[in-house]
Amino acid sequence: MVQTNEKRSGTNEIYIGNKPFMKYVIATMMQLKENDSAVIRARGKFISRGVDVVEVVKKRIQEAESVELNQTITTGTEGFKNDEGKHINVSTIDIVLKR
Amino acid sequence: MVQTNEKRSGTNEIYIGNKPFMKYVIATMMQLKENDSAVIRARGKFISRGVDVVEVVKKRIQEAESVELNQTITTGTEGFKNDEGKHINVSTIDIVLKR
Repeated sequence: MVQTNEKRSGTNEIYIGNKPFMKYVIATMMQLKENDSAVIRARGKFISRGVDVVEVVKKRIQEAESVELNQTITTGTEGFKNDEGKHINVSTIDIVLKR
Repeated sequence: MVQTNEKRSGTNEIYIGNKPFMKYVIATMMQLKENDSAVIRARGKFISRGVDVVEVVKKRIQEAESVELNQTITTGTEGFKNDEGKHINVSTIDIVLKR
């Protein structure tokens, strides 16, 4: 079985999780530099954190370059089975940032 | 079931906080019934909850009426001073639902 360590490798997607907050900010800034776009994706309780990351990135780029990023947000629901086999729904958010 | 004694009286805004989850779902459904639109507003850690409310409402209306709600999301940052006088930034989300 082949596994890729970085989920986002090859794409401009950043998945928000438990890592230190600034890691996500820096990863997003890098994607915007390399690709002129970035997609911040988060599920469940990490949605708030995803919005925080986006707000910090927008503010930094506004301050550094006086550029206002274009933002598109979609939300959704994913279903999965938890450890006890119970069906669980979790909300998702995708925030697309573009120069 | 009638609920009127809420912050949102006079507007179609629902502020997400600590109350039982279904209260927000019902309040949003009522606003959509009365005004054909509703604005779900949340700050900080409640942003995830706001998205959950919106996802449940959209699913319910989809199932009951086969209607897909129109959704517009904006995010922002609010600054305030905390109890120790320190300046704090908090992210905000406004989700507008329309029939």
